Amino acid sequence: MAAALDDVLPKDPDFEVRARASFARQSMMATLGMSLETVVPGVVEMAMPYAPHILQQHGFVHAGALSALVDNACGFAAMTLMPKGSGVLTVEFKVNMMSPGKGDRFIGIGRVVRPGRTIMVTLGECFAETRGERKLIAMMTATMMVVDSPGIVD
Amino acid sequence: MAAALDDVLPKDPDFEVRARASFARQSMMATLGMSLETVVPGVVEMAMPYAPHILQQHGFVHAGALSALVDNACGFAAMTLMPKGSGVLTVEFKVNMMSPGKGDRFIGIGRVVRPGRTIMVTLGECFAETRGERKLIAMMTATMMVVDSPGIVD
Amino acid sequence: MAAALDDVLPKDPDFEVRARASFARQSMMATLGMSLETVVPGVVEMAMPYAPHILQQHGFVHAGALSALVDNACGFAAMTLMPKGSGVLTVEFKVNMMSPGKGDRFIGIGRVVRPGRTIMVTLGECFAETRGERKLIAMMTATMMVVDSPGIVD
Amino acid sequence: MAAALDDVLPKDPDFEVRARASFARQSMMATLGMSLETVVPGVVEMAMPYAPHILQQHGFVHAGALSALVDNACGFAAMTLMPKGSGVLTVEFKVNMMSPGKGDRFIGIGRVVRPGRTIMVTLGECFAETRGERKLIAMMTATMMVVDSPGIVD
Repeated sequence: MAAALDDVLPKDPDFEVRARASFARQSMMATLGMSLETVVPGVVEMAMPYAPHILQQHGFVHAGALSALVDNACGFAAMTLMPKGSGVLTVEFKVNMMSPGKGDRFIGIGRVVRPGRTIMVTLGECFAETRGERKLIAMMTATMMVVDSPGIVD
Repeated sequence: MAAALDDVLPKDPDFEVRARASFARQSMMATLGMSLETVVPGVVEMAMPYAPHILQQHGFVHAGALSALVDNACGFAAMTLMPKGSGVLTVEFKVNMMSPGKGDRFIGIGRVVRPGRTIMVTLGECFAETRGERKLIAMMTATMMVVDSPGIVD
Repeated sequence: MAAALDDVLPKDPDFEVRARASFARQSMMATLGMSLETVVPGVVEMAMPYAPHILQQHGFVHAGALSALVDNACGFAAMTLMPKGSGVLTVEFKVNMMSPGKGDRFIGIGRVVRPGRTIMVTLGECFAETRGERKLIAMMTATMMVVDSPGIVD
Repeated sequence: MAAALDDVLPKDPDFEVRARASFARQSMMATLGMSLETVVPGVVEMAMPYAPHILQQHGFVHAGALSALVDNACGFAAMTLMPKGSGVLTVEFKVNMMSPGKGDRFIGIGRVVRPGRTIMVTLGECFAETRGERKLIAMMTATMMVVDSPGIVD
């Protein structure tokens, strides 16, 4: 769906600085061991290593941790296209879990498919990486809302 | 949607023991501070207190933590109706975040709406509790799959 | 989830007249044979009889017709709570098909769970009715947006 | 997400004949004016012209018609990868409506992202075509189930 991204230009030239600062303020990211990797206009990549404190009952990484990874990547992808002084909220997301969370680390990639002024629609993918090989294990679509509110600035 | 639950009887009389043992094996639950409260056939309630390590950038509880809470409640609700020796996997879930994660603690309630042999459809709610008052802040629908696999037993 | 509806009061006293007029302007409703039944603040019920022109390949009513029925019920439920002069658009919906479309007629019920100023979250149910008995066959959650635009007035 | 399709080979060499015969049996397709265009393993394209009998109240094509188009494309994409003698059922789908249904005709493309034995996960796109130019107006993720049942053969 790359075609939809052709006309995407960031409204705030400091989008990457802002995204990295906002990421650093989210304690949930540190708790789950996430790192913010690539940040370009409309696309964000995050990583999360396999770790013993984020598992479900069968020894795989918990679906909740994987979906948090992709939801975050989608939210930050939306953030890269928002004007300065605004904030992003998740309106809804839906995730299809396609394979269990087995691997060395997990990659969440979010991209903006429809950059609206108020509503941004994003597509997210989650890959399990094992010895450098990536396998698609989850897919998400998420709706993000751009809000102008004093308490909610990214 | 209570009507759909009329004929729900657990296939495994030890469903509660099994659910509590499975919950205890999930390190992600401890990491996020979740507890398993009510466990009855087809309905499960979990709780998660507000805590500084599960927040997003505006100081609210992270959507990823809230959706993990409700996804879990839905998965365990499905588990109460499954035969002994089987396991439950999340096929997909969709969550609508309706209000920010503000409150003393958060309650996730999952209920089975359609108890199929292979596919169970569940409805989940997330409440923010402040001084004992509950407010609905998120709603989920989730598809759970019952699997018969040696490595995946709850 | 009835509790969330306690404080719901229509902003436009003519909400039912407006809903019925808007329904009459939708040619898709006539094409599928839908009728608008109950219209109360925050809840709308629609019906669609089984008919030979809306089937899928196995002789059941097509999932597309059933989801259109419930999506409509959700959209009109949102419309009952909107101010005069505004319009409603579907941002997204997700439907779980739980049983095939077998029956004499099909009932779609939409209710507003979270009546926001811009975003309304709705829950929809689809029942198959056979000799007066109703069976829940599909469940939907949908996000509706209230828009103030000259071309989009309901 | 094309990478996930690399190893996709149809289990039934007559997949296209079967898909076209199944399409012809769906009265709903004729009612909405849909045609089955491209049918290749794992990917299906359908078309639906703008028509006065499938509109909503603002003169755009109804979201229900657009989502039926994409849901169908996803279901038939799954069908191309199924063994002979089985049938396909929609477990759930979620659609994000990104722009109104304005255009000369509408194209629904479904592709299989995860071809499982029982569960197939698909990604669908809906384009509005105006004087030959395509614009992405809706995106869907859908779960399809492969069933082996005497009454449900495609």
